[in-house]
Amino acid sequence: MAKLRIHNFAISIDGYGAGPGQDVDNPLGVHGLDLHQWVFATRTWHNLQSLDGGDETLDDKFIARGDAGIGATIMGRNMFGPIRGPWTDDEWKGWWGDDPPYHHPVFVLTHHPRAPIAMQGGTTFNFVNDGIEAALERAFDAAQGKDVRLGGGVSTIQQYLRAGLVDEMHVAIVPTFLGSGERLFDNLDGGPVGYQCVELVSSPSVVHARFAPEP
Amino acid sequence: MAKLRIHNFAISIDGYGAGPGQDVDNPLGVHGLDLHQWVFATRTWHNLQSLDGGDETLDDKFIARGDAGIGATIMGRNMFGPIRGPWTDDEWKGWWGDDPPYHHPVFVLTHHPRAPIAMQGGTTFNFVNDGIEAALERAFDAAQGKDVRLGGGVSTIQQYLRAGLVDEMHVAIVPTFLGSGERLFDNLDGGPVGYQCVELVSSPSVVHARFAPEP
Repeated sequence: MAKLRIHNFAISIDGYGAGPGQDVDNPLGVHGLDLHQWVFATRTWHNLQSLDGGDETLDDKFIARGDAGIGATIMGRNMFGPIRGPWTDDEWKGWWGDDPPYHHPVFVLTHHPRAPIAMQGGTTFNFVNDGIEAALERAFDAAQGKDVRLGGGVSTIQQYLRAGLVDEMHVAIVPTFLGSGERLFDNLDGGPVGYQCVELVSSPSVVHARFAPEP
Repeated sequence: MAKLRIHNFAISIDGYGAGPGQDVDNPLGVHGLDLHQWVFATRTWHNLQSLDGGDETLDDKFIARGDAGIGATIMGRNMFGPIRGPWTDDEWKGWWGDDPPYHHPVFVLTHHPRAPIAMQGGTTFNFVNDGIEAALERAFDAAQGKDVRLGGGVSTIQQYLRAGLVDEMHVAIVPTFLGSGERLFDNLDGGPVGYQCVELVSSPSVVHARFAPEP
């Protein structure tokens, strides 16, 4: 059975997955980029950027795992871009340039219809406006037996957790304080319920905690 | 200079330091005891209870560190007992029996005066009703050059963090979800501000993160 998986979703020690004030200059909110510095040191990230260097660390192993066996990605509209409301500007094609690092079909949750966009390198952005279950069904179809990665952001993950649709969740805890923003583990009706920790390890700069549904 | 130190303060992966519904049957709130199971496996805890056994693990090292060089403890009134308001029941002498595991002066923050209580084994409970700075001053005096440990609970730690009085903070992150309760890193006016992580390690069951003021 193909799975819906979350990988390398970074939160601060005080629980925030994004800082306050997200906009085009601060896609992850103010200080939100602090949560991702550890990624930029890894060999896998360097490879994705066609750069030499990077370290083959524990963190690198987790970054690489996040792509292994993945055939499609789901993300929320705010992860795709800073535009809210109807798509008045069809020029916006994501944060990632002409050749986004996905190389497979991506499904963007939105309330506003938009035609698919084919990018270089095999990434297509598809816009789904009939709900998270429909997006998941389309993503599983597109993944052709591979798993689907749930990218984010915070409120998208919360929606899938509330619906009980997440099969694996890897959270990367970064020992910094954001003080405000969007907390990953909020708005879950007292949950998430029914998950157990299946792996807990730490590098000197980030904790990796993996969760799966209890058997 | 003697320091005010927090050690082994356990929080869930979703940030809660205590569960909801604290009362005499649930001193740590519902499911709050889940945060402390790792302690009961350690050699140091066994020693404190005059029991044989226990494991000399990384977790054990952190438990032992929490007592090293400590000459007094400060705690909030809710950590001392379930009674709220005036001390109508002077029979209550804490959760820990006749010989509490402190063996030094303990200062309990309260709005309601009460005479000190001398327990077996060197622990005295002193009740301070003129504020957190006064309690800290009395604790430093009583510690005679040793450090003071800030025990908890959540709102007491928040008060000292807001006042910028904490010199060292060790948080133990337990990979379980409480879903509700008291979050350690709330009510801090967008902080804590000015702390950096000085140590991040994990056993298979708990993450240890130590913070100190930035130089």
